[in-house]
Amino acid sequence: MTDVVKRFAQNPILLPHQVEPSMPGLVVECLMNPGAFQFDGKTWLLLRVAERPRQKEGVISTVVIDPSTASGLRILEFKADDPDLDYTDEDPRGFLYQGRSYLTTLSHLRLAWSTDGIHFQVASSPTLLGQGELEDFGIEDCRVTEIAGIFYLTYTAVSAQGFGVGLISTVDWQHFTRHGMILAPNNKDCALFPEKIAGQYVALHRPTMPGSGKNHIWLCKSPDLLHWGEHSCIIETRPGMWDAARVGAGASPIRTQEGWLEIYHGADENHRYCLGAVLFDLDDPGRVIARSQQPLMEPVMEYEVAGFFGSVVFTNGLLVDGDRLIMYYGASDHVVCAATLSIAEVLASLL
Amino acid sequence: MTDVVKRFAQNPILLPHQVEPSMPGLVVECLMNPGAFQFDGKTWLLLRVAERPRQKEGVISTVVIDPSTASGLRILEFKADDPDLDYTDEDPRGFLYQGRSYLTTLSHLRLAWSTDGIHFQVASSPTLLGQGELEDFGIEDCRVTEIAGIFYLTYTAVSAQGFGVGLISTVDWQHFTRHGMILAPNNKDCALFPEKIAGQYVALHRPTMPGSGKNHIWLCKSPDLLHWGEHSCIIETRPGMWDAARVGAGASPIRTQEGWLEIYHGADENHRYCLGAVLFDLDDPGRVIARSQQPLMEPVMEYEVAGFFGSVVFTNGLLVDGDRLIMYYGASDHVVCAATLSIAEVLASLL
Repeated sequence: MTDVVKRFAQNPILLPHQVEPSMPGLVVECLMNPGAFQFDGKTWLLLRVAERPRQKEGVISTVVIDPSTASGLRILEFKADDPDLDYTDEDPRGFLYQGRSYLTTLSHLRLAWSTDGIHFQVASSPTLLGQGELEDFGIEDCRVTEIAGIFYLTYTAVSAQGFGVGLISTVDWQHFTRHGMILAPNNKDCALFPEKIAGQYVALHRPTMPGSGKNHIWLCKSPDLLHWGEHSCIIETRPGMWDAARVGAGASPIRTQEGWLEIYHGADENHRYCLGAVLFDLDDPGRVIARSQQPLMEPVMEYEVAGFFGSVVFTNGLLVDGDRLIMYYGASDHVVCAATLSIAEVLASLL
Repeated sequence: MTDVVKRFAQNPILLPHQVEPSMPGLVVECLMNPGAFQFDGKTWLLLRVAERPRQKEGVISTVVIDPSTASGLRILEFKADDPDLDYTDEDPRGFLYQGRSYLTTLSHLRLAWSTDGIHFQVASSPTLLGQGELEDFGIEDCRVTEIAGIFYLTYTAVSAQGFGVGLISTVDWQHFTRHGMILAPNNKDCALFPEKIAGQYVALHRPTMPGSGKNHIWLCKSPDLLHWGEHSCIIETRPGMWDAARVGAGASPIRTQEGWLEIYHGADENHRYCLGAVLFDLDDPGRVIARSQQPLMEPVMEYEVAGFFGSVVFTNGLLVDGDRLIMYYGASDHVVCAATLSIAEVLASLL
């Protein structure tokens, strides 16, 4: 393990209890995996906020999207002994009622802003809720990429139909244009390159094939950011290593003199998520020049190892300030943290 | 069950032994699921030909793509007691050698032509072999769609990375342009609409999520046939019915006065594949107007029920002659058959 990553002394910088629930009766359970960007002279995060109803004895409850309510959300409650309910403690993330599946928590995206990049003020209500059949179970893990003055948001759209990649654009963070699902299920972890390469937009993504052991990073190309093709598999998991079970892109790749630098996550069979780096050719981004043998960052702090499903550091939000990368990351699927890295030091670790 | 479908008296019209192996030492095991088109005054099929090495006692063998050989193929043989070999009779379709996976059979695409649509001559060698890392395990189940004088081939590209949808185009069936993978894994059963609708190309496809029970038909849109987005789920499986476990598009939808007519396949939990029809709105093809409650065609003939994995009728090749549909289909994952349907009768069964 290297000392390339310097964690903020203030970590965690955002905790669930600092965020106001979307409606009475809900509890913010987790803050996760923020996108990051600069706008209007401030540093902004687009948080993934996971909520669920306040738990009551003998009741299984969930929150669903309902555009007819003031908050856009509605709480559903079922008696735990209802014969139509199919619930096991084995998978506490979901249950069936009358054959229909529900998640116990629902994620939305919410803005937070800061003048120092450390102390954030969080919006008092959701910025973006899932919309329509393909986002019924919420929207998650949003990357924010500014291209020619337009912010493009790529996020995981979750529903009973599986999870795919949705695209939203905005210029002012007040008005949003929804472009639908750009990558069909099951797919997630989509990061756009911040400029056209050889006349085409380029993206990283992660088709997911449960049970197959195939959780690799792919690349695809587009003339317009809305329609994608020319898929190829460029980064595979590595048996026996820290990224043996799954890999996925983080935020948008960063242009350096040596190539496109991407901070990605890798997990092993024990669901331990670390971060590493990969370097792509500037003109041929499907060509991998170098890749971290050892993780750049491992979950070691108490706030990074307290998670229910495993030890997790996961980033999809990076800012660049000269040689310095400011990396916002989700720790332990529960809180938001930050750290800095030197681009030169990361490149030196790779080359 | 209706009498809408009239099988050819000559069925099966093509059998594996009528097709020459691609190289000495190979056996053609199965002919499957042809695309169909008219060209140069003849009826053509683009067959899926599945081959494997002639079996020898004590030897596990396979055939792989190798562009350095005359045939483009190479036979690999392993001693059944080789400790590096991981083979079980439970899944006779594949094995591992030194941790690398192989299929026991390899599929390629091969042209056949006919002047009467019944008696076909088959090319003596493969027309299209898999090419590159994403087609290592072969190419399968090709739909052929003519749009403005260009034939577009959408097929399943199979490799250790999973299966996705590849696209090839040709004008003359001598020279082929490869456009790469247009839909990332796992995806198959991609059928193009034969014309633009509201200024965009449209396709049906089938994202596949093993173990999830989600094997539905989706729709997507494209400005150029090469890049796709705006994915939506339009036809789900129906519990308790003939299409309870999976559904997938057949050949390109056919324009009728009532809407776009699509003959699709549906399978139940017993891997029994039947054919039914669905009708889409002419201007809004994501809107389903009607769908077969009962299958139009069930596997009942001896050549349709003899399969190893189940009873199968599967089509991805249709020709239109006035009110008459000539449907080429794979029976029992083994032989090629044909049948006719009246468009008016199919519509009457739906409306």
